[in-house]
Amino acid sequence: MTPSGVVSTFGARGRIVAIVPAMLGRFPVWFGTPELRSMSETVYISDLAAHVGEEVTVQGWLYNKRSSGKIAFLIVRDGTGIVQAVGSKGDVGDDLWGILEGLEYEASLRVTGSVRADERAPGGYELSIVGLELVGPSSEDYPIQLKEHGVDFLLEHRHLWLRAPRQVAIMRVRDEVTKAIRDFLYERGFVNVDTPILTGAIGESAGTLFETEYFDLGTAYLAQTGQLYNEAAAAALGRVYCFGPTFRAEKSKTRRHLTEFWMLEPEMAWCDSECNMEVQESLVGYIVGRALERCRADLVDVLERDVSRLEPVVPPFPRISYDQAVEKLQARGSSIEWGDDLGAEDETLIAEDHDRPVFICNYPKGAKAFYMKENPDDPRTVLCNDLIAPEGYGEIIGGSQREDDYDRLLSRIREEGLPEEAYGWYLDLRRFGTFPHSGFGLGLERTVAWICGVHHIRETIAFPRTLNRIYP
Amino acid sequence: MTPSGVVSTFGARGRIVAIVPAMLGRFPVWFGTPELRSMSETVYISDLAAHVGEEVTVQGWLYNKRSSGKIAFLIVRDGTGIVQAVGSKGDVGDDLWGILEGLEYEASLRVTGSVRADERAPGGYELSIVGLELVGPSSEDYPIQLKEHGVDFLLEHRHLWLRAPRQVAIMRVRDEVTKAIRDFLYERGFVNVDTPILTGAIGESAGTLFETEYFDLGTAYLAQTGQLYNEAAAAALGRVYCFGPTFRAEKSKTRRHLTEFWMLEPEMAWCDSECNMEVQESLVGYIVGRALERCRADLVDVLERDVSRLEPVVPPFPRISYDQAVEKLQARGSSIEWGDDLGAEDETLIAEDHDRPVFICNYPKGAKAFYMKENPDDPRTVLCNDLIAPEGYGEIIGGSQREDDYDRLLSRIREEGLPEEAYGWYLDLRRFGTFPHSGFGLGLERTVAWICGVHHIRETIAFPRTLNRIYP
Repeated sequence: MTPSGVVSTFGARGRIVAIVPAMLGRFPVWFGTPELRSMSETVYISDLAAHVGEEVTVQGWLYNKRSSGKIAFLIVRDGTGIVQAVGSKGDVGDDLWGILEGLEYEASLRVTGSVRADERAPGGYELSIVGLELVGPSSEDYPIQLKEHGVDFLLEHRHLWLRAPRQVAIMRVRDEVTKAIRDFLYERGFVNVDTPILTGAIGESAGTLFETEYFDLGTAYLAQTGQLYNEAAAAALGRVYCFGPTFRAEKSKTRRHLTEFWMLEPEMAWCDSECNMEVQESLVGYIVGRALERCRADLVDVLERDVSRLEPVVPPFPRISYDQAVEKLQARGSSIEWGDDLGAEDETLIAEDHDRPVFICNYPKGAKAFYMKENPDDPRTVLCNDLIAPEGYGEIIGGSQREDDYDRLLSRIREEGLPEEAYGWYLDLRRFGTFPHSGFGLGLERTVAWICGVHHIRETIAFPRTLNRIYP
Repeated sequence: MTPSGVVSTFGARGRIVAIVPAMLGRFPVWFGTPELRSMSETVYISDLAAHVGEEVTVQGWLYNKRSSGKIAFLIVRDGTGIVQAVGSKGDVGDDLWGILEGLEYEASLRVTGSVRADERAPGGYELSIVGLELVGPSSEDYPIQLKEHGVDFLLEHRHLWLRAPRQVAIMRVRDEVTKAIRDFLYERGFVNVDTPILTGAIGESAGTLFETEYFDLGTAYLAQTGQLYNEAAAAALGRVYCFGPTFRAEKSKTRRHLTEFWMLEPEMAWCDSECNMEVQESLVGYIVGRALERCRADLVDVLERDVSRLEPVVPPFPRISYDQAVEKLQARGSSIEWGDDLGAEDETLIAEDHDRPVFICNYPKGAKAFYMKENPDDPRTVLCNDLIAPEGYGEIIGGSQREDDYDRLLSRIREEGLPEEAYGWYLDLRRFGTFPHSGFGLGLERTVAWICGVHHIRETIAFPRTLNRIYP
């Protein structure tokens, strides 16, 4: 697995070979016997525990190094973990020593060494270097040094910033959350139905749609939600979900907004608003539990997350009505009036009273989307809920029971001035065997930000897209 | 879980209640005692086996019905399966009998009945009707009748066509394939990294990009691949993948093309072209095995797939070089010349010799993308592979080792006339610790079409987008 077609140098005998000066700057350059190279097993850093006392090869990048002048410590990362590789000048000889001292941050290399358990070492294991192959040199110009950089600089170098341990940890938590979501739904009989991104005309709010020309068919829009399509699929398959990228051409510059983000949207036939909240709290409890179980080291050691704030996230979650929320906010001096939507600060205030996410239910009709079902107990409101995360992370879920009455839905579409012809197929779902159904949308980045304790959601996606950024 | 705010009718006593004529046409209308309704457990059709001898309620839609004049057979579907519910005129009484006879296709209903095992019944179980709630009536105008419709008509009614058993089966296989892919990769330490859809300038081939205005930053393009971003992520995390929608503004009207489709793209650090093919064949073998294990009824009973054609799909898969493929095709009378790309017919011819997918390796440079690594054994070619499915389903995977040499990559970018400044970050990956790496793209719809034995890939996605279609 050496890049082919590039000259390699092997010593004929002895553990460390003399370096051929002309080879410097070319790669790969191998220090160590060819026998050693072919005999040692290549392993991932996360698997070192199983190889104590053996000679193995690790492939990765140089994250950091220090040298006492006689002993060099290389910190090597491979995506699965970090290991310290140690070589003393006396053992490795002058030539390899010169290379060890000259290695630049992010050089790629294959290090062969014997594995020792060492509690003081990062990750708990250490490699005693017996050979090293410099695969891809780096340069002193490597942009991201081990110091503070401004966020614009880091975002401009996101393709390299991703290699930082903190970013690696966030990506691993995001992966675990994603897999936990899919496992949870699969095990409960939900069918993943991928809904389209290119859509004819429908979304949550016009004016925040990205547009593209679609052959001879006119303008297409990038979907803001898959929900309406999910509703059609729920009539076919019962319980479904979509989970993909979602687009909002919003001019929002807050720590909770991206123009492209991932959203999970389950939709359930024969499920009312209460059933909907039960699924939401079970799912969120499961996600947090999986992250605590399988990403504890990333959360605690790398992200320094106070996991005691996540431990209580177990269903049932408290439920308060919108009416109660408004009363509570007014009692605390807020100027909110019945009918207003809740702002981020309002949400934070409500969340402060609870050690786990809190449902706020049944908002005024005017504050919510046209497809939500009228609340029979108070027709000024709809059967919906937001789920507010603790610690000021805000809304992570919005859910509702859907209007299943043809006439009421049609008049809501007309009230909102939406293009009726584009909703013909959506109305069909109420003409032919309408059924009670509910669903919700969970914002992946906001959920990951909360679990990781990350302030701004731009760090929770590999290549964030914001008002000012589309590169790299 | 009844739609709230709608009048229900319950009889005071007796099993079947008299119908109140004014209620006809409103819903839900319940036939049966309220006690029965609250006592019977609501179950999914797929769970009926566990309830033989019990009275249960099933919620779903009327797929079909027939009546002898004295016995009515309702075929009810709920997304998890299909069950026959049987009621005789003598047992159910005239009023319910009238309703049973008047039910339209796709009416939504809750049927209560006792579960009997019956080998002759579809699914193996039958319900003897004791009560029925008509939740949402349908109409004799229901567009999709149990007869042949033209494909344009069906696509225009895709939101309803999805309810047909064949479409439900395909969606369930797609879901299983998707989950199998994610399980396979998760268990092998791959990290899911979602790559952006909105991108600055890069893709496989200009001229087939959808464009959108991006605030003050000019034009953004919808991504044709996540691979280049994956390569950055692989240097951070080792083994990664993206799996999301992909866009091609191609004017192709073939059974293998959509303008929006889902693609899985793994990318692996320290993996060469041979390693890449080993991962591909293991993955494809695993996917097919999972579908055979968990979707056998859908494949055999509904889709009538000849699964004996899938059983041999076990690694290793045969490998032939592009050179060998051209010789073979020429020997069979093809006019192909060395340097030409293979067409769909060529692929089918090659695949005919094998009972499992076949790799075609190391194509001419000119036929493939700029980022593929030059083959050191024959620099006219690159280290790549296509994977061709049997039975004429064509290419399901394209993979390659990536060019890891800065200078060679830069000259390829210049040769192709690509905008160099847009690839600055991509070239950085070769400046700072370059590393051997490989990856591939698997087309989800083509894979599902092959496994299901479906002729046209438009049936393998819920809402297909083609040159002529963006509705519903």
